[in-house]
Amino acid sequence: MPRSEPPQDASAEILAEIARWPIFDPHTHIDPHRPAARHFDEVLGYHYYTELAHSAGMPTSQVDPTLDPSVRATHLAGYLDRIDSTVQYSWLMEIARTFHGFEPERITPDTIGDLLAKADKSATGPAWDHEVWTKSRLEKVFLTNDFDDPLTGWDTSVYVPCLRADDLVLRPHRPGVIERLRTATGIDVQDRASLKAAIGRLFEHFTSRGAGACAISLPADFRPRPETPVTSSTPLRRVIQGLPTRDDERQEASRSVFWMLAEFCAEFRLPFDLMIGPAREVYPMGVAGGRDLFDRRVSLHDYRELFNHFATTTFVVSTLAPDAAAELVAYSWIFPNVLPMGHWWYSNIPAYIEGDLLARVQALPKNKILGYYSDAYKLEFIAPKFNMYRRSLARVLAGELMGDRGWTMDQALQFAKLVLLENPRRVFGVERGSASARI
Amino acid sequence: MPRSEPPQDASAEILAEIARWPIFDPHTHIDPHRPAARHFDEVLGYHYYTELAHSAGMPTSQVDPTLDPSVRATHLAGYLDRIDSTVQYSWLMEIARTFHGFEPERITPDTIGDLLAKADKSATGPAWDHEVWTKSRLEKVFLTNDFDDPLTGWDTSVYVPCLRADDLVLRPHRPGVIERLRTATGIDVQDRASLKAAIGRLFEHFTSRGAGACAISLPADFRPRPETPVTSSTPLRRVIQGLPTRDDERQEASRSVFWMLAEFCAEFRLPFDLMIGPAREVYPMGVAGGRDLFDRRVSLHDYRELFNHFATTTFVVSTLAPDAAAELVAYSWIFPNVLPMGHWWYSNIPAYIEGDLLARVQALPKNKILGYYSDAYKLEFIAPKFNMYRRSLARVLAGELMGDRGWTMDQALQFAKLVLLENPRRVFGVERGSASARI
Amino acid sequence: MPRSEPPQDASAEILAEIARWPIFDPHTHIDPHRPAARHFDEVLGYHYYTELAHSAGMPTSQVDPTLDPSVRATHLAGYLDRIDSTVQYSWLMEIARTFHGFEPERITPDTIGDLLAKADKSATGPAWDHEVWTKSRLEKVFLTNDFDDPLTGWDTSVYVPCLRADDLVLRPHRPGVIERLRTATGIDVQDRASLKAAIGRLFEHFTSRGAGACAISLPADFRPRPETPVTSSTPLRRVIQGLPTRDDERQEASRSVFWMLAEFCAEFRLPFDLMIGPAREVYPMGVAGGRDLFDRRVSLHDYRELFNHFATTTFVVSTLAPDAAAELVAYSWIFPNVLPMGHWWYSNIPAYIEGDLLARVQALPKNKILGYYSDAYKLEFIAPKFNMYRRSLARVLAGELMGDRGWTMDQALQFAKLVLLENPRRVFGVERGSASARI
Repeated sequence: MPRSEPPQDASAEILAEIARWPIFDPHTHIDPHRPAARHFDEVLGYHYYTELAHSAGMPTSQVDPTLDPSVRATHLAGYLDRIDSTVQYSWLMEIARTFHGFEPERITPDTIGDLLAKADKSATGPAWDHEVWTKSRLEKVFLTNDFDDPLTGWDTSVYVPCLRADDLVLRPHRPGVIERLRTATGIDVQDRASLKAAIGRLFEHFTSRGAGACAISLPADFRPRPETPVTSSTPLRRVIQGLPTRDDERQEASRSVFWMLAEFCAEFRLPFDLMIGPAREVYPMGVAGGRDLFDRRVSLHDYRELFNHFATTTFVVSTLAPDAAAELVAYSWIFPNVLPMGHWWYSNIPAYIEGDLLARVQALPKNKILGYYSDAYKLEFIAPKFNMYRRSLARVLAGELMGDRGWTMDQALQFAKLVLLENPRRVFGVERGSASARI
Repeated sequence: MPRSEPPQDASAEILAEIARWPIFDPHTHIDPHRPAARHFDEVLGYHYYTELAHSAGMPTSQVDPTLDPSVRATHLAGYLDRIDSTVQYSWLMEIARTFHGFEPERITPDTIGDLLAKADKSATGPAWDHEVWTKSRLEKVFLTNDFDDPLTGWDTSVYVPCLRADDLVLRPHRPGVIERLRTATGIDVQDRASLKAAIGRLFEHFTSRGAGACAISLPADFRPRPETPVTSSTPLRRVIQGLPTRDDERQEASRSVFWMLAEFCAEFRLPFDLMIGPAREVYPMGVAGGRDLFDRRVSLHDYRELFNHFATTTFVVSTLAPDAAAELVAYSWIFPNVLPMGHWWYSNIPAYIEGDLLARVQALPKNKILGYYSDAYKLEFIAPKFNMYRRSLARVLAGELMGDRGWTMDQALQFAKLVLLENPRRVFGVERGSASARI
Repeated sequence: MPRSEPPQDASAEILAEIARWPIFDPHTHIDPHRPAARHFDEVLGYHYYTELAHSAGMPTSQVDPTLDPSVRATHLAGYLDRIDSTVQYSWLMEIARTFHGFEPERITPDTIGDLLAKADKSATGPAWDHEVWTKSRLEKVFLTNDFDDPLTGWDTSVYVPCLRADDLVLRPHRPGVIERLRTATGIDVQDRASLKAAIGRLFEHFTSRGAGACAISLPADFRPRPETPVTSSTPLRRVIQGLPTRDDERQEASRSVFWMLAEFCAEFRLPFDLMIGPAREVYPMGVAGGRDLFDRRVSLHDYRELFNHFATTTFVVSTLAPDAAAELVAYSWIFPNVLPMGHWWYSNIPAYIEGDLLARVQALPKNKILGYYSDAYKLEFIAPKFNMYRRSLARVLAGELMGDRGWTMDQALQFAKLVLLENPRRVFGVERGSASARI
């Protein structure tokens, strides 16, 4: 749509400045024991590349997990020309050039050998982790930890733990889940009361290790409902004890655990990171990580009771369907305890980010805009993904705030700092002990 | 999305010209007995500021209705820095500067005193109304009148009455509503027939006072259905007589009254102003006016029978969910009697307006595009809100019509005049007595 | 939304180049026996003009099919000023100027006579077809053929047949449909088995004549389901034999025939062209072709089982609701056998095309982007409609690939060639006999 154009120079100047800032990344899948890639296959194996290459014609067998990593990487390189216009490919090239000094114009079966050699960090792993961290100017990187993760063996002040709750909410009936909970907490979970006690124990454990959030992904048809002992005791007991259960009983159990988590988030002042929308295994024949999609018919209206009931819980929300973005703007505009997270997965391309970011700038309190998160599995991806967002942010700020509202460069940069650093720092941590849990 | 950019000069030239034109505002909540603000608290008390400040962290108690207005305004001023990037804040600053000569860069607890003094019109009320009217170049301002408003005590040729039908359609079972209808019409409403007669009496009263429209806001789950005596007589009678009713009976009664209104709109040649989508009291703990949201899963497909049945009723339609905008374009493109109204509430920010306005320009007959309405509660807001729209309109016309289609400046301005003035004048009034009720 | 602006010169240079290329048009409603218009009424009678003029106030009687074509055209000309800002009007003017040397600024009742005379090709029909073909640089034009079309009497290598399956899937219970199938195939269709054999015969016939696709439009509430003899035999038999059927039986029959078609598309390596979303006869009083709309609450999630089951069938998909576009991007990104087609009908305006095209460029393998189709009824429309798309494409490529990614002009043009020509040629034909049916 035609808009008063961001002064090109202003946009470039903002970008040049904010690209030098540290990165606060409030949601990733980084393994703190092995944060950066040791082999370039760990970069090329990111589901974006395997799924796009597969979508473009590559058989899944070409990236089979049993293959030698170099073979797998070489196979994939043979298909990269088909996806070289994607923004995901641009992250890949930025990694190759920035971190590995790769100079050829393209990654192909001919040039991949050189890149694999340059990116071989098997001998220097931890030093390489440090180098990527430093070069990317990382400040904090949030993790996604299983509920029974001991959270030991790394510096949790920089690799910040997050309690990932999908297993507890969506799969408590699956074999082993409750047993893992018993083992992790030392509580003999048998019913609603002992389950709740055990979950409380998890929150104690996670917050004692400096956890930054409790995170969960929720399918489009999930409907939060208040949990009461009367309705949930029997379904929970049956699920916990591994008895046969009906669909409605498993749903009641899921809703009950979810509601308990929201309650503990309030008690422990932990933001509840809701990622709404994925439909799992929609394409089961796809590559690992490339099988999920969504149903766009989703609404935050289904979450109204939750947002009201837990007025002191901070909900940081991502929605997966790009066309649902405007609704998140409206709910964040009204509910003090609802904040919009960065742009997630299928919504994470500039075509969707920029329009939505402009709406957030125009309609939301500036202290509630939470910038971006990388969702990365390897450290190398954080900077390129943030740079993509920074480019969009620079354009929006130059166009809207400087162009249309007459803000100065300094004011625009203050705004960028709030969105990229100060808001995430405050919401996810530094001030969590203070009186107001909301902002 | 990248587009051939509007020539900056052309856009600015269009804006400079159309900003000088009179304003025809076909939907507001202005009180004709007290149209402009006497105290700046009446400006700062607009729900956009109280709800955004609350969303940003301000307790609702800070703007409690029982507080002294100056105290309330000062409280709110303490939170304005958190929302100074919103487009709503830009309206506020435009009011402060344009109408009150406020010069400081920001409204803060330090500077609010000066502003409150400057904006104190308690002694000069009517003269101030006149000054704002003149300075804003207002031509006509449509009101939103309760069905039992006597419509006396003001010049209805400039403050144009509109019959607000929410009480009759959505709340006839609430205590007092039917009694008010009896009192207003002098008809002893007891059943379907007398109800219909009473509603007819309302239309006579409103049109005799120059009413411009019948307006109603409809929730996302409202489904219009044809009204017949067979299905509606009993539910209507039970509702009217205050007997206990089931949900389905109240819904049938609502649909019946709604259908009658559409019929009277046809008979009295009054546009039916449908505002589709709000979900009421979604956040009941919010500030006054800041508790409603929406469910985005709404479709005009539910209104097809209505649009067909009342082919001679002009439906002027607003939809609340921004992502529903494209559907309104399509329905306005096909149905002669469906016209798209301005951008409403959560859709009323340039990020949503411009993309949708571009689509309307590209796909709709130009004599059906209805510009903008302010939805304002105080006269001061009309000009700043229209100026926001005019800026978007200027960009779209410069980019699309002049840039892409090669129109001249004069042609673009003719188009702007049609959209901003001539179409609203025709649809809402001047030519309503003529043969074609549609356009 | 503010974006780094496409260098104006680059965009114009790309457009100038690609406007010279041949056109491969994979979906039209051209009549191969009479492809170009003999009378300008055949151009003005396109539903876009009659429905927009009607929406703008023209009574349907003004374009009644029984009127003399010149009278009808003159009537319509009287309303064109009301729709002269639409992009559809711009196609009309391009036709008048390019093909008929029409010089006045506008088509009005005063100037239409001259245009009708210039566009009168009753005496020189086939030569005119040839002239339009050549001037438009058409390469291949796909047709939409009834299943019982003999497919004779024209050169099927340039006017490529497509099997239109709506009658078989959506209306097999309607009188005459099965009889037409019997006549066309010589098979005495009486039950599921003979129906399947007959449909197989159609595929043989169509592919023997070089068919390019099997195409169908599907309503928003259509839900594909696997077909099995157990569930479908009885409903199919009852429908085939014209016995009374319930809604659920007709739906089962529809789903069964649809599933069979997908199976034959796999067997005969024919792309299955799915056009998802229209709601038929929503405005029954409209002009011919101007009565259909859509319900935006549609999701490709309903098609997941189909896309999985027929992994070797290529599904080329259009969705009608503009706000559903992002979902098609996601499904095309994951499913190798799902490809996004051009922008259809209510989505076919630059306001919707450009944002979506940008997303496709950023997120999809470049060998899966299928450019555009005209959906035209007369040859004259193909070039203007493609030119509209080419303009959007040039802007996106200049802005995104050259501006943001640093591609050269040559690289951008290679990309354009892939999208406009090479991908459609490959997917719809030339390589269909090769091993991979997917891309």
